[in-house]
Formats: sequence, C-alpha cells, structure tokens
Amino acid sequence: MMNLTQVDKYLETHLDESIAELSTLVAQPSVGAQNWGMQECARLVGQMLARRGFNIEIMPTGGAPVVFAERKGRSNKTLLFYNHYDVQPAEPLELWDTPPFEPSLRDGKLYGRGVSDDKGHLTARLHTIDAILATDGELPCNIKFIIEGEEETSSVHLHDFIRENKQKLAADACIWEFGGVDHREVPMQYLGLRGICYVELSVETASIDVHSGLGGSIFPNAAWRLIWALSTLKGPDERIRIPGWHDGIAPPSARDRELMAAQPDLAEEYKSRFGVTGFLKGLTGGVELALAEVFEPTCTICGLTSGYQGPGSKTVQPAQASAKVDFRLVPDQTPERCLALLRAHL
Amino acid sequence: MMNLTQVDKYLETHLDESIAELSTLVAQPSVGAQNWGMQECARLVGQMLARRGFNIEIMPTGGAPVVFAERKGRSNKTLLFYNHYDVQPAEPLELWDTPPFEPSLRDGKLYGRGVSDDKGHLTARLHTIDAILATDGELPCNIKFIIEGEEETSSVHLHDFIRENKQKLAADACIWEFGGVDHREVPMQYLGLRGICYVELSVETASIDVHSGLGGSIFPNAAWRLIWALSTLKGPDERIRIPGWHDGIAPPSARDRELMAAQPDLAEEYKSRFGVTGFLKGLTGGVELALAEVFEPTCTICGLTSGYQGPGSKTVQPAQASAKVDFRLVPDQTPERCLALLRAHL
Repeated sequence: MMNLTQVDKYLETHLDESIAELSTLVAQPSVGAQNWGMQECARLVGQMLARRGFNIEIMPTGGAPVVFAERKGRSNKTLLFYNHYDVQPAEPLELWDTPPFEPSLRDGKLYGRGVSDDKGHLTARLHTIDAILATDGELPCNIKFIIEGEEETSSVHLHDFIRENKQKLAADACIWEFGGVDHREVPMQYLGLRGICYVELSVETASIDVHSGLGGSIFPNAAWRLIWALSTLKGPDERIRIPGWHDGIAPPSARDRELMAAQPDLAEEYKSRFGVTGFLKGLTGGVELALAEVFEPTCTICGLTSGYQGPGSKTVQPAQASAKVDFRLVPDQTPERCLALLRAHL
Repeated sequence: MMNLTQVDKYLETHLDESIAELSTLVAQPSVGAQNWGMQECARLVGQMLARRGFNIEIMPTGGAPVVFAERKGRSNKTLLFYNHYDVQPAEPLELWDTPPFEPSLRDGKLYGRGVSDDKGHLTARLHTIDAILATDGELPCNIKFIIEGEEETSSVHLHDFIRENKQKLAADACIWEFGGVDHREVPMQYLGLRGICYVELSVETASIDVHSGLGGSIFPNAAWRLIWALSTLKGPDERIRIPGWHDGIAPPSARDRELMAAQPDLAEEYKSRFGVTGFLKGLTGGVELALAEVFEPTCTICGLTSGYQGPGSKTVQPAQASAKVDFRLVPDQTPERCLALLRAHL
C-alpha cells in the first residue's frame, strides 16, 4: 500500500517543478476553435508522458490528434484518465491582465489560458504519478491516458475514435478530465454532466451592406431576421420553445433531489463571484437552484455579431448577422435529434 | 451672365487637379464616430476655401468644429452651401480592395472613404467656383459655406450652432450637402429627407462572462435580454411596436404620390446593386415601393455585439450585449419624443 503522507510530501517539495512544467504546457497555445498549435501541443503532451515511462502514441483523427499513453502497474486492473490539451479562445484579450499564453504567477495563483481547464489537471496527475513512482517504485495499477484536442469544440471525432480503439482503451474505471474543490475547499466529484449541441446561426439578406437611410423600410435586414429567429427559440420565461424539445425528458428523481439537497447552497457564492443580482425563474437558492443548474436543458446565446460594432454610430443596414448558440442536453436528449428539431423549427 | 459652356470646359481641362485635390482630402481621415482626425480635416477644408479667396473661420462647437466660409459676389443675394467633412467608419476593413484612406483610381472611378459622402461634393463645388472665377472673374452672388464634422453622428451640436450664428448664416437659399445622378444619369434634386434618432442599447447582467455550462439555466444572459428587448421594437410584419410611435403621422398626400409616381421604378436596380431577392411587406416596385422607401418611419438594427464572435465555438454566457439602432423619422416625429417613447416602452 502506498504511503500517502510521503506522496503529499513529495508533491510539496517538488511544487516549483510542477508549476514550471505546467507553465511550459500553458505557454504552448492550443486553441481548438482557431486550429492554433494543436499538433505542437499534442507532441508536447506526448513528451511529458514519455518522460514518465509511458508508451505513447499520437493518433490522428479527422481533427486534432489524440495522445494515448499506457504504463503497467502492480495489479492487473486498469485505470483510464481522460484529459484534453485544447483550450478555449482567449478573447476578449483586453480583459487579461497578462498575456493568456505567458503564464504569470501572482498572489500564489498561476494565470494563463488552460491553467485550470485542463492543462493543470493533466499536470497534477502526472506529478502525482511522479510522487508515487518516487515513493513506491511502481504504479498500483495499469494507467492509461487518452488526451484529446477537441473537448472545447464538442469532441466531434472522439466518438468514432473510441469505437475504433475499444480494445486499446479498455479499462476498469475512468476518471474524467477535471475536478477541484468547491468554495469551502471540499473536493468535488462529478458523476455526470449535461451534453452539448452547439450551433452557429447565420443570416445573409443582401450581397452588401446598405446605407440605413435607403433600405430601412424596404430591404430585408439580416440582424432583424436573426433577432426574430432567436426570439422564437426561447422566451423571457426561459422555456425553450422549439417544438418537441422537452419531449421525453424525465424530471430529477427523488434520489437526485436528495443528493443535490446535500450540496451547499451556492446562491451567495454565485452572486459575489459573478456579480449577478438574482437568478432566473424566481429561483433564490437551495436545492431548487441546484437542480435547475444541472437538470434542465439550456439554450444559451454565446455570441452575437452583425453590422457596425465600433464606437459611435454608423448608419448601416447589415447584410449579414450571426449567433452562436449552445444547447445543453439532459438524459434522453441527443445532439442529432435536437439539431433536427431546431432545423424543423427554423 | 456666365458662360456655362466655358465653365464645363474649364472643369474638364482641370479634371486631374480636382481629382488630386479630392484625393488629398480623402487621404485625411475624419471618422466622427471614432473622433479620428477631425481637427486636422477641418483645418484642411479651411485651407481649401482660403485658397479660393474665401474668408474662413474654424468655429468650435461642443463636438467637431464647423468650418464657416464666405465670399462676396456680384448680386446681393446669398447662396449657402451645407457640407460636412466627417465620414462613416471604414470598417469592415477586409471588404476594401484598397485601404480606405489611400484613394485609388480604378476603371475611371476614385475609391476611398468619403469620395462620395461628402468630400467629393464639396470638392466639386469648389472646382465649379474655380471655373466660374476663371471664366467670369466674379461669383454671381455671395457664397457662404457651413461645413460641419458631425453629419455622420447625428449633427448633435449643429442645432445650437445654427441658433447661435443665425446672422452669420443668413442666406436666400441653401443647397444641402450632396446630390448626384440616378442610374439613368438623370440629376436628382431632393427637397427633403427623413430625420434620425440613433440609439445604442446596452445590457449588462453580470460582472464577468460565465462558462455556459454553469449559468445557462440559472443566470441572466445579456444577449438574451437584448434579443427579447429588440424583438418588442419591431416584429416580422415590419411594423414598429413602440406604443405611440405612429401617432399623428400623416400618410403621403395625393401630391406626394403624384410626384413619387413620376420617379423611375428602382426595383430591378436595387435587386442587382444590393443583391436583395425581394422587398419587405410584399412590395414589388412602382410607386408603392418608392413611397415606403421615403415616407415610412424605420427601425433599423445597424449593429449587434455580444460574447464570442471569432471562429469556431466558445462556451460562454455573455455578461454584456449591445445593439445600435437607427430610427428614421417622418414629418411630425421628433427625436426627443421618439426617445421618450422608446424609454417608456423599454
């Protein structure tokens, strides 16, 4: 049995090394949405695993490569870690105090894109492996890693990848990419999360923008068309209005309610951290807020763009408009079915 | 009486000079919405008039300065020209074949921001004055110019400026900034245009953007709030829904209809120039299209901005969203009253 006190001590003694290695990983851009640095980051992650004695393979997919790694341990059980090396776009850049890909240690915290999601978690796991190997000489079980590069862009190729590599990925248990502590410093364990269907809606009503004094009352306006389409997806009552969207969705079970009721009430924490003054649908906190947060399907506008967006006024009628919309899906909803319902509705 | 043939001949002979002078003026940025180059452009315009023997004054306002110029002529009648030296923002820059402030002569046409609106018209007038002076030695009447720098940003300070300088601006007639020929090369004369009320609507629902997996079903979303607010301003039937907006608006008179019916039908011209496939409200062309174009109040979205707008997806719930909205006003509507109705509605 490994000595956890020794493992902790090792990690503490080698804290600077782990921060240095994380900084190197964060400094390597890997913005999936912009296809920026993906191959380079996959290679870097592969090297990090190879240094720990893992056999690695950098496996192509239809998109960003998957890094697969494996190392034998004492038992014949296998633990699989799923992580990802891609990060979200860093824009808007003006909100960063330091450049997103130049990690900066301030007040005991490391700032940089991907420090938390998910390069930090991967690095933490690798340093824990270092600690176990240093104190115990061997891993307690076989360890596999699957580290993909499309988590932030809906893991488009992962499903096929897993189907094609079932044998290679076979394991007795899998630990998902992240984890952490809540505001009370209590470690959190997630047993599931909602799915996602992310779409971009685009409208084009003319070949060029028109002076707004000319076309305002006779030409179609792409921005208006987009507004009206979006306003049919969800109303101010927050209910998704796409016909069929809620069909067959089961409400949380009694056991779900019981487990969620055991969570701390995050209402005040959310208000102070995000500056929201209240919650939707009359929610004030407690188990009802917690249930709404994770058991309800969502329709979130993530971005809007049309026409002139600079300072001051420009009298222009836009020919183009677009919106990015993120639907979070609950059990018994699939992205394919939801996309079909959305198409049928629009 | 001046000899118009000689005037035409002078203009033709000096075409290169007039294009060169226009190019210099266009090369001086003067983007009112971005407060870029306004003082410099006012000085340049003043120099252009001073070269023609005008007495000039560059007069401060609460915003961009007004260039006032005056030169005596043969009669004691006074003609006032109103022009403006400010231009619209040149964005989106990627749609320009050549830089907007580097005028470029291609296929016999000069391209650059402000070539048409309104630096070209001002330069054309000054070269006509050159031609008259060269052929006739004297102007036929007193000429005054008032050249402002806020036309593209709603002429916020012009009303006060005119009230404070009534005597200086006194004239027997005034010719407005632009003019041109229609698609048949027939010179157009406008006897009036709609007014404008341009607003920016901004929403802020949180102090920072939130991951869309967290806040989607419990935090207010600035983009959604904006969509719902906008969708109450105008519906897909194109009618403005702000209570009271249409009160007291007189329909076009029989004389208006008669004059508009004498215009050529622009339907096909609009379709080919702007790439629109049809018109709003079932309009197909003829006098009804012409009347709708200029006699109806409009509510045009000129710009939308919120959240992530780059390539690919970013799972973010925006804390801020904004829209630029241009209302065109018809007789008996005032910006003040319309703004009050809009505020009361929202």
